Amino acid sequence: MTVHPAHTRIETGDLKVPFTRVALTNGETFDRYCTEGPGSDPEVGLPPLRAAWIDGRADTTVYDGRQVQLLDNGRSALRRGAAQGEWRGERRAPRRAAGDAPVTQMAYARAGIMTEEMRYVAAREQCDVELVRSEVAAGRAIIPANVNHPESEPMIIGRRFLVKINANIGNSAVTSSIAEEVDKLTHAITWGADTVMDLSTGEDIHTTREWIIRNSPVPIGTVPIYQALEKVNGEADKLTWEVFRDTVIEQCEQGVDYMTIHAGVLLRYVPLTANRVTGIVSRGGSIMAGWCLAHHEENFLYTHFDELCAIFRRYDVSFSLGDGLRPGSTADANDEAQLSELRTLAELTTRAWEHDVQVMVEGPGHVPLDLVEENVRLQQEWCHGAPFYTLGPLATDIAPGYDHITSAIGAATIAMHGTAMLCYVTPKEHLGLPNRDDVKTGVITYKLAAHAADVAKGHPGARDWDDALSKARFEFRWRDQFALSLDPVTAEEFHDETLPAENAKTAHFCSMCGPKFCSMRISQDVRDRFGSDLTPEDAALGMKEKSAEFVELGGTVYVEPDAS
Amino acid sequence: MTVHPAHTRIETGDLKVPFTRVALTNGETFDRYCTEGPGSDPEVGLPPLRAAWIDGRADTTVYDGRQVQLLDNGRSALRRGAAQGEWRGERRAPRRAAGDAPVTQMAYARAGIMTEEMRYVAAREQCDVELVRSEVAAGRAIIPANVNHPESEPMIIGRRFLVKINANIGNSAVTSSIAEEVDKLTHAITWGADTVMDLSTGEDIHTTREWIIRNSPVPIGTVPIYQALEKVNGEADKLTWEVFRDTVIEQCEQGVDYMTIHAGVLLRYVPLTANRVTGIVSRGGSIMAGWCLAHHEENFLYTHFDELCAIFRRYDVSFSLGDGLRPGSTADANDEAQLSELRTLAELTTRAWEHDVQVMVEGPGHVPLDLVEENVRLQQEWCHGAPFYTLGPLATDIAPGYDHITSAIGAATIAMHGTAMLCYVTPKEHLGLPNRDDVKTGVITYKLAAHAADVAKGHPGARDWDDALSKARFEFRWRDQFALSLDPVTAEEFHDETLPAENAKTAHFCSMCGPKFCSMRISQDVRDRFGSDLTPEDAALGMKEKSAEFVELGGTVYVEPDAS
Repeated sequence: MTVHPAHTRIETGDLKVPFTRVALTNGETFDRYCTEGPGSDPEVGLPPLRAAWIDGRADTTVYDGRQVQLLDNGRSALRRGAAQGEWRGERRAPRRAAGDAPVTQMAYARAGIMTEEMRYVAAREQCDVELVRSEVAAGRAIIPANVNHPESEPMIIGRRFLVKINANIGNSAVTSSIAEEVDKLTHAITWGADTVMDLSTGEDIHTTREWIIRNSPVPIGTVPIYQALEKVNGEADKLTWEVFRDTVIEQCEQGVDYMTIHAGVLLRYVPLTANRVTGIVSRGGSIMAGWCLAHHEENFLYTHFDELCAIFRRYDVSFSLGDGLRPGSTADANDEAQLSELRTLAELTTRAWEHDVQVMVEGPGHVPLDLVEENVRLQQEWCHGAPFYTLGPLATDIAPGYDHITSAIGAATIAMHGTAMLCYVTPKEHLGLPNRDDVKTGVITYKLAAHAADVAKGHPGARDWDDALSKARFEFRWRDQFALSLDPVTAEEFHDETLPAENAKTAHFCSMCGPKFCSMRISQDVRDRFGSDLTPEDAALGMKEKSAEFVELGGTVYVEPDAS
Repeated sequence: MTVHPAHTRIETGDLKVPFTRVALTNGETFDRYCTEGPGSDPEVGLPPLRAAWIDGRADTTVYDGRQVQLLDNGRSALRRGAAQGEWRGERRAPRRAAGDAPVTQMAYARAGIMTEEMRYVAAREQCDVELVRSEVAAGRAIIPANVNHPESEPMIIGRRFLVKINANIGNSAVTSSIAEEVDKLTHAITWGADTVMDLSTGEDIHTTREWIIRNSPVPIGTVPIYQALEKVNGEADKLTWEVFRDTVIEQCEQGVDYMTIHAGVLLRYVPLTANRVTGIVSRGGSIMAGWCLAHHEENFLYTHFDELCAIFRRYDVSFSLGDGLRPGSTADANDEAQLSELRTLAELTTRAWEHDVQVMVEGPGHVPLDLVEENVRLQQEWCHGAPFYTLGPLATDIAPGYDHITSAIGAATIAMHGTAMLCYVTPKEHLGLPNRDDVKTGVITYKLAAHAADVAKGHPGARDWDDALSKARFEFRWRDQFALSLDPVTAEEFHDETLPAENAKTAHFCSMCGPKFCSMRISQDVRDRFGSDLTPEDAALGMKEKSAEFVELGGTVYVEPDAS
């Protein structure tokens, strides 16, 4: 799907790295980072771009894998005695590390190996591949790339790179179908999602995920405790390490690239939430808190963390260390519960790194603007620079229905201070499940927040996009202004609501001032008269004589539309 | 118009100061600042709330006033030989200072007088009236209150008070009618606009403004150069001080409360814009730049500034010193043109204060997030704390169609650092003219940005609103969550899209997790078990014994909806 006629996906270099190329009316082109993938027939899936690279490293083997069970698709599949909507595309046998050595990008990076994934990432980010390798080696960036998700186009998450955004999709016990979820995936990446999390908790969890991964050019994340909970009839106290471990392996074999693991919700932290305005709002956090309380035992994700690492390193699954005790209201921000958990996540980061497993750390949530910077500062300090991945945060609680905006304010701010990836929030947050339009609104909103942060950070080349669009605006290249927009369709629609005529798209004025007087025109006249390469001092000196000329030519400042 | 059944306007105290009272289902009420006014029949207008106060000061006189001319309603009225849509409500003769003494709130404040306007403001802001008086006296806050706009409910703009927002309305040469503009006014204040600017540049400018002012409980601002330009057939070089002065008096007599005056666009600054990416984007700025260039003379607004002050002090019109050279792209932010003009605005601030005229200073525009704080810091320093009033700023240029959001990010940030009022930006910015829905979206977006700043500043009581809403959310008081929202209608609609049934509004779960498992429920169980007034230490100690109890009662954690 091409979002606008002036956009094409192009592939450059020996690795065929994708860019979105915008063809401008002045003959120039503008290339930007592309997430939409090469496009797929949902029933067939994507070609395995990375298969040859993975093969070439000769450190993985194909094996039989775990038998898929009816319960993997939930209790209703069990009731029916059959799965539904089975994946009909190619089925590859699962693959994992052949021996004891990890097959993670971090292990390669630490060994000084430049993988194709790293080269691909460097080409996308237009940076040196050594920067990619050294940041991954140091744990300051991750390349989520499960060996069982060869369809993915490698991307990197780290503060030295473009700020990334994640879109959550997934069905719930209440509503939605497999086809809808695949459609949301495609919609999310078309508009710019860098990763997608499948948070399904409803029917056909296993099969929905299979369809999503096989069609996804972006890394897929999950929260495996959601599926594990379904396997124990939704009763958190019935959860066991064995059920969880089995679920993780099921998902590793399908190709999930990163998994949220709420291993920082320790038994002793749970009472710290008792006096909060909104207690525990993370679903995973409350599941683990419920388990800890029911058993009065330490969180099994914490006690079995090294075993998890041993699994993840065989597939190159990355940790997304979940912040189960994140604040759910501005009142609860940066409190003892939240910061205690963060200290534990820091400890777990170091432990995962000992296994060469890639890690990012999740963050809030709801945080007043004055406390936002502290969140990323503490996380970066305590977690030794591991990438921070935050949900917003919302800067105020008072605007349900507009929480994509309340959170974009916090998100741009936290990303400016060093957060590497932002999890989007849609207008439906707190109220209902996002539909297709909400997914788009969430993605575009977070794209602009992430880009605002890139510009504020002075990320190399980031402002070029702003400049290209602003130049098009200044020169009344309306079509280019639309094409360069994050959302060309909406920009053009809004313009046409006031000035629908076709020639208004080439007119040297807009509906704000109308044809008779236009501030953009007068500025262009200033430039024409003073030249665009004069210093301000030269310009001031030359002004007197230019003035006479300006009066003579004055008529051109207030041209009628047909005269321009 | 009441936005939600659970909302009422109430009036308290001897001055009958309005609040929006939200009736909660738990019997409590929550009062918040109210902008919507008592409501009016557009053809009749509002009662003159302040008339007795103004009269009581006995320092103004009624006079004949300037004769309204056909040209006041634009060239088409002139062509037609008649005005149209004439104001049919009460007409009051204009009023101005009786003698030489100024009748401004600043003059009263400096003289130690507590006016009814100050007491009204203090009651609205729930602060001490002395704070109001001293801030106005020092020039750090303004109460825009033209003696010819007695319908207005006094409000204050200053960094020590709630952050305010302005909504722009007004027709253009291209489109729209008087009734539409009055409807936009009502819509804007219903959703929370603190002031409204009428930026009409099309037909019936004078009459449209009359209808707006007579129906407005909030201060009305204008940019008189727009109307003056219409009077000289849209040709900037034909503008004269005399035409401008006449227009200003026309508007003073109608009751405009503050006027944007682009007196800082000095001749020598114009060439500084020649090398910009987007030149001069302010309409007023480019009009004055065009005039300066055409005549090679200093800006007549600057050379006649003291005469303007002498007019404003007779009506208590406040200056909004326009930033005609504000950046129109992130590339041009904080450049020499912008900062040169700001230095001149600082000089003009001091001059206006010598006349006891109230002043606020306008600011950008388009500014990358890392440069936002510098804008407000320099303005506050150079302009001796005069209130700052910014347009956004937009944190990136790449998202036309979403510029309410790109600018809300900058707006929340700049307000957190001390900006007193935010001019909204609608989704149509850069593309077309806002319709009714765009006005609402712009207002709500800016309300949430302003409130996020109030919370970040630790403004007394600001977070109470967040806490009230979050508590309602945590306790599954859905109706209260809607009623406490900035936009109850949208919040309820979004909820109902996923769970339309009436009983879902009292259900103790939501569509995110479904009835079987709910994270909010488990938190409430944590609280029930550990008590809400325990210290974390106490709670940790008491945990072991509570745990056994928790397992026994475990069933209640995972209640079915009908059981709760």
